[in-house]
Order: sequence, then structure tokens, then C-alpha cells
Amino acid sequence: MKDLRARSEGSCVSNFYKSILDQSFEHYVGSEEREFTKLLEPTELKNMLGLKLERGPRTEEEIQEFVDQYLKHSMNTNHKKYMNQLWSKVELPSITGEFLATVTNTSMYTYEVAPVLTLMEHEMIQYLSHLVWGTSQTEGIMTSGGTASNLQAMMVARNTKFPEVKEKGHQGYGNLMPVVLCESNAHYSLKRAMNILGLGHESLIEIQSPTNGIVSQERISDEILNQKNLGRRPFLYIATAGTTVEGSYGDLSAIGKLCREHDMWFHVDGAYGGSVLLSSQYRNLMNGVEFCDSLSWDFHKILGMNLTCAFLLVKKKGVMKSSLTSGNDGYLFHDDDSLDLGPKSLQCGRRADIVKLWMNWLAVGHDGLEKRVDAMIESAKVFAELVKKDADLELMFEPQFVNVCFRVPGNIVEPIRVKLKERGLGMINYSQNEEGPFFRMVVSRPDLEARDHQEILSAILKTYHEVKDDH
Amino acid sequence: MKDLRARSEGSCVSNFYKSILDQSFEHYVGSEEREFTKLLEPTELKNMLGLKLERGPRTEEEIQEFVDQYLKHSMNTNHKKYMNQLWSKVELPSITGEFLATVTNTSMYTYEVAPVLTLMEHEMIQYLSHLVWGTSQTEGIMTSGGTASNLQAMMVARNTKFPEVKEKGHQGYGNLMPVVLCESNAHYSLKRAMNILGLGHESLIEIQSPTNGIVSQERISDEILNQKNLGRRPFLYIATAGTTVEGSYGDLSAIGKLCREHDMWFHVDGAYGGSVLLSSQYRNLMNGVEFCDSLSWDFHKILGMNLTCAFLLVKKKGVMKSSLTSGNDGYLFHDDDSLDLGPKSLQCGRRADIVKLWMNWLAVGHDGLEKRVDAMIESAKVFAELVKKDADLELMFEPQFVNVCFRVPGNIVEPIRVKLKERGLGMINYSQNEEGPFFRMVVSRPDLEARDHQEILSAILKTYHEVKDDH
Repeated sequence: MKDLRARSEGSCVSNFYKSILDQSFEHYVGSEEREFTKLLEPTELKNMLGLKLERGPRTEEEIQEFVDQYLKHSMNTNHKKYMNQLWSKVELPSITGEFLATVTNTSMYTYEVAPVLTLMEHEMIQYLSHLVWGTSQTEGIMTSGGTASNLQAMMVARNTKFPEVKEKGHQGYGNLMPVVLCESNAHYSLKRAMNILGLGHESLIEIQSPTNGIVSQERISDEILNQKNLGRRPFLYIATAGTTVEGSYGDLSAIGKLCREHDMWFHVDGAYGGSVLLSSQYRNLMNGVEFCDSLSWDFHKILGMNLTCAFLLVKKKGVMKSSLTSGNDGYLFHDDDSLDLGPKSLQCGRRADIVKLWMNWLAVGHDGLEKRVDAMIESAKVFAELVKKDADLELMFEPQFVNVCFRVPGNIVEPIRVKLKERGLGMINYSQNEEGPFFRMVVSRPDLEARDHQEILSAILKTYHEVKDDH
Repeated sequence: MKDLRARSEGSCVSNFYKSILDQSFEHYVGSEEREFTKLLEPTELKNMLGLKLERGPRTEEEIQEFVDQYLKHSMNTNHKKYMNQLWSKVELPSITGEFLATVTNTSMYTYEVAPVLTLMEHEMIQYLSHLVWGTSQTEGIMTSGGTASNLQAMMVARNTKFPEVKEKGHQGYGNLMPVVLCESNAHYSLKRAMNILGLGHESLIEIQSPTNGIVSQERISDEILNQKNLGRRPFLYIATAGTTVEGSYGDLSAIGKLCREHDMWFHVDGAYGGSVLLSSQYRNLMNGVEFCDSLSWDFHKILGMNLTCAFLLVKKKGVMKSSLTSGNDGYLFHDDDSLDLGPKSLQCGRRADIVKLWMNWLAVGHDGLEKRVDAMIESAKVFAELVKKDADLELMFEPQFVNVCFRVPGNIVEPIRVKLKERGLGMINYSQNEEGPFFRMVVSRPDLEARDHQEILSAILKTYHEVKDDH
């Protein structure tokens, strides 16, 4: 192995990789000042990058060339003009935390191999649980993302309400058809999870939500009764706290009470909007969250952590493990009553996603995260006001959270987006309803000011006037 | 937000975090020379670290203190004495690749937000597919780990063989009880996945495997027929290429032929042992892999990549997407026939796990990875010979791969492990069978020499003689 080791361990090699790390850090620090990425066609980009895997090693010059190209052509998600997703610029302490986790590479399954990290994850789960339920006598796990959190929550709910399913599978449901209820603007991961869990798309009953996203208590109550009358068993309601498109919140108090009444598991998908729990000013958007049995909450969305940094919190201790364990993992988990996080996770090997959040928390504290959330919601309101003031633009509804949905005349969207991307003027996402496509602006960083908002609106309007006659 | 930004963006702050990055890099480079971690009790460790989340921010001195403690007390998984898992020392190019992915933080769902990364992941999947099937006209995805790969493979198999399940759930199976077959030494994730998928533990038919792990073709054939006679439908066989405990390989040719005969999906769990496909000398352990419909393959195990770096490869194009998509993800995936990887993934947001592997490939090439695999298997053979030479030790079977299972007299294991850990002399894992517990040594790095092996064996034997009279 001498030749392999020489290429990855000698002090010259170590200096070479150190210089790449330094270059990467400088790239991050300067990313806001750099041009925004112009999107290239796949074939053009592929030729430019010369992406090809070979039998032999490359020279340091070739590796350096790859790194330069990688940094140049990767999407500049730290730029202010990147407003395309529910996340954008990542914070410096998070970057550092990720690197700490990288150099101490380990897996989160046992205390034995991840002693410090296991204690950190337990501590964070207790803190967050206290924000949700006012108690830390709960349980939770970090997952690979909001989609995985929702899947696991739905599985825990299913196995708690139908305990025979774990052993007997679909033969354990008895004669009742289990159904899950949610609003129609819930995240697509719910439908996908129904498929994965063997419950099927048809067993997800989606209650049509109005544009602002709030379904009335009566409508939900009627649907639960309707399902029961059809001979089905509604066992789980999933409310969304911060819908993907509208950023709207369901009435958690009302739903929570209905779930108790009907003996249903109550899951809140707060992957996106759960972060208002950090804010004393805005946590009322989630009034009633204390009724929930489980909550998904991502810190890689509006809170500026690196992807992924996601939690599933569950109110009742013990149900995660009892829903999951299978009894043939003894080679790994040697102790029944331990701190080991593995038996609660859908994963076996798992990255240490806790470190970035911990580092950020040390840097700004709960107070800093709260200010961040407040600033983003304020900023979204400023953006909405600018939309309202422009005669060409139509604000679709008053924002509750950090999404602002608006239309241009004729509902032209894609031609405008393409031109903006090609010119590197910015990225802003869209969605559509029965009246056609519309822009969806997401304020996912705290430092966007009226000037930034005006710039992106001007670019959209200018492009609109260029393309409107072709459509 | 001025105060928050000041704490995470000013140039002094940036210098502070840069110094932590430099410290982390030095920590990594020196990790082999540093003492091996002594394991502490949770309460002792927690007090020492002062792990507590607060409302306000910490000072730079406090953050520095945390970082020092974190690095000091985290498991030194880069040390030669860390032989506890199927992975150990991570490679320098991987560390660098992880940092490149960290600074360009993006999600792998669309080409639009991850242009370079999407092309890289496609290219790698094509290369690996060629090693499996001799063609690149296949599909695949990077997952959060081998457990997720197995889950997704089982789901794709289920939905391909029972297409009505996606919409109708458990009502789509008809009258037949679907069953999955595997060997009893398969990974615990299979049983867990049966639970998640709503198939139930009982529908996993585990064929008892002998100690060396190889079940005969007749035994498998008999079990398939037996299940059919019981009125069930065996639709999936999962063979393990490199079992967790023994490192043994099933007879993939024989199983592949049986699966064709019985119209069953053939999945190979090569999360651990799939890496022999890189070696012309040892890929014969997986003869017949070309018959499989899907393969799990992790690069964060013996190949030295950071956790996680995992692939699911599927032979037939199109089945991953058709198994998964639900039709309510239009806000994210705007184009039906695109490069976007999202519609094939169980995740929505997903980290760029491809970069570390790409950087390592550039550094050593396929040739370097092949040498690594060969060196580890040779090293395991050397270890096995040392075990055989010692009168107190019993080698349980000749190793096929990089695991060496052996016993000490009286099958004493845990007291020896505890003393080794407390004294920081090393970590080596164990498992058990009907005759009692035994040590499981995993050679998961290429540079372990006879001297290293002799050291850990001597430490085990010395400790055995200290504790044997108490047991």
C-alpha cells in the first residue's frame, strides 16, 4: 500500500489538500461578492468540466483544475440572489461544525463510538422538546431530512395504533382500512410515505385547502366522521406548520382536540415552519402544538444550517424503539437500557448532524436564532408590501410566514425564470394552482433588505415586459 | 440583524472560525499519533464537557474551549487501534471533498440547484453499474446509507411485483401473502425494512446459514417451493455479499438462477462486501452478481470515505421513479424527462455525498481503490494466521473477506473489551452464536501490518489472563 499512502498521507500531499481547504474557505467567505451562477446546459457543462472517471490517479494539477471548476460552476447558494428554496446562505459556525464532524468521522449508533455526539444529540432533543411540550421527558432522533422525519412519524403512529402490523404486516390491520388525513397543501413526502409504508396513496385523505391554507375545524371533523361511516379507521392526522408553497399554518389547537376525541395520532409537519417555536413573537402561529404526538423540524431550512439537520420529536418515551426494533441487531446494540441512539433511528450508520447546530447555538444562542426568525418574517412582510404597491403585480394573500406568492399579468413564469437564470440575475421558484403558475418568493435568510427585494422585483418586471408579447 | 451578522460574518469572526478549521485539520493529520480514546462514563463525560444549551451567545473563549474538549473526547476513529466497525480511518481526499460539499451547500434534488453535482452522481452511477452488469444503461441513487439502500430496493421490488400496492396499499396484494427470503446472517436492516414497508417481520423468511455463511442452492430452492406450497408468494430474494459478522458471501450465481426461474426480484446487499467488485483478484467472490436486479454498495465502509457514501444501483431503467412518484411534487420537479435525481430518491433534500468519493477517485483512481481492497483482504489473512498460531485462540473459520472471527477459552469477551476500552488499548467488536460470544476483528483500513495485529492480539491475551479467574 506504500504508493496509495504516499498519495494521500505524505506531508506534501497533506499540504496540497490543506491548500484546497483554505481555498474552499475563501470561496465561502467571498461567495456573496462573487457573481451569481449562470445556469449552463448539461452537455455544455459536462464538456467544460471533463467529468470522467479513470483507472489511474490524476496529478495534483489536474485535481486542482477540478476543484477550481467545481467551485466556479456549482450553484452559488450563498448569494443574495438565490431565493429558490426553503434554505439559502449557510452560516459560518455551521460550516465549522460540519468540518469538526468530518475530521472526527463516526457513526451515531452507539455511545461507545460516539460518546460526545450522543450526549449532544440527547441534550438538543431535550431542549427542543421543552419548546414544544414544556417538558423534556420525551424522545427524538435526528434524521436524514424532513421527508425521513415524516416517514418515521407515520410509521410510529401506524405501529402504535396497529401493533400487530410490525410482525404480521398487512395481515395485522384486521378488517378496517387504516386511513391518514391531511390537508391538500401538505408536503409530497406524505403521499410518498403512504406508498413506502404499504398503506397506499388512496389511504391518504387530502382535505382541500383554500389558498391561504387554513382548513376549518368543521371540515376536518366532517371528514373524520365520513371516513368512519365508510368503514375505515382514521388513525393519524398530519397538520402542516408552514406549508411548502404558501408558508401557511393549520389550526393546531382545533386539530389537536379533534385527534384526542377520535383517538388519532397527531403529527405536525413543522419541517419548514417549526422554527417559529424559537420566537416569542411568532410562536403563536403554532398555538396548540403541545397537543401533538410528534413533530418534524428541520434546521437546514430557514435557520442556515448545512443540509441536512433534521429532527423528529416524539412525545411519548419508548414508542420509537418499540416501533422499530427487530431483535437481530445484537451484534451492534449490546445493552438494552443505554444512551445508544441507534435503536431509535431508521438508519444504521448515521452522520453527526448535531455538531453544526451546536456550533451555531454556541455562536448566537437561542436569542440569536429568535432574532433571525423574527427578521425573516418582517422581511417577507416588506416584500409583500412592495408587491402590493406595484400595479403590474398581484399579491395572492397576506403572508403568515416567509413565503410571498404573487402573479404577473398573464401568469407568465417560466420564460421569466429562464432568462433570469441564464443571465445570472437570480433564482426564485414558482408553483401553480387552478388559475395558473405564480412566483413563490422565500425569504430564507435574515439579511434581505427592501433594496434586495426591489432588485429582484425589478428584474422580474423588466423581463416580463421583454417576453410578454411572445406569450 | 446587525448583532447576529456581526457574530458570524465580521472578518475577526471569520478569522476565529478559520483557526478552528485549521485546528481541526491538524487534529485529523495527527490523529494516528495521538493516544487512543479512553472511554468515559456518560455522567463523567457530560460534567467534563459542560454540555448545556443557553439563551445567549457564548464568548469566543468558551467556543474554543468547547472545540478543544470536543476534539479531545471524541472517539479517535482514525487511530490504528480502532477496529470496532466496518469502517475506520477516513482518507484525506474524502475529508477535502466533504468540505467542498459543505461550502457549496446545496441539495441533490434538481439539476437547477446542483448542476455539477448531478452530473457527477450520474457519472459515478454509470461507472459502478458497468462493474456490476457490464453496462451503464441502468439507474441508481446515492442514499443515506446501506439501510436506506436496502429499504428502497425492497420497496422497488415490492412495487414492481405488486404494482397495485402503490395506490391501494395492503389491499393491493390480493389473496397472496407476499414473502421475502434471505439468509439468517443478513443485516438487521432487512427485518426492519419489512416492518417499515408494512410487510411485517413474519414475512421475512430467514434461511438458517451455517457459520461460514454459505447456504446451499438446494436449501434455497426447497424454501421457495415450501413457501409456494403454503400459498404465499415469494417475490424477492436478498443475498448478502459480505455478511456483517462473518464477512461471507452467498452463492450469487445459484441464487440468481433460482430467482429467474421463480420470477423473483434478486437484490444483493453488498453494502459491506460490494467493494470487491473493484478488485480483479477478488471480484470472483461475487460471481453471478450480474444476475441481480439491484445492489446496495457503501463507500463509507472499507473504502475510507466519510459517513455516509452509499449507493443503490438498479438494473432496469425507470422502475425507481415509477415506484416512487406520487404526482404532487410539481412545485419542485418541473420537467418530466430531466436529469433531476430527486424523483428517484426516498429523500427530498439530500446532501452532496458524491464529492468525497469523487475527490478520492481523482487521488488514487480505480487502481488505487483496487490495491486498497486487495491489501485489506491480504491483511485479514495475515491476522487469521496469527490467530491459528496461538494455542489460546481459536479461529472460527477461514476468512473470505476482511472479518476474522475468533474465540478465547471460556468465550470471555465483554470483560476483556471493557478493560481494553478503559485503558485506551483498542476497540474491537464482538458478536455471538449458540456457543457463546466471540471476537470479530475487522480489517477496515489497508495499512494494518502483522505488527499491529500482534499488538492487539497480545493485549487481548494479556487481559484474558488477568480476568479469566473471575469468570
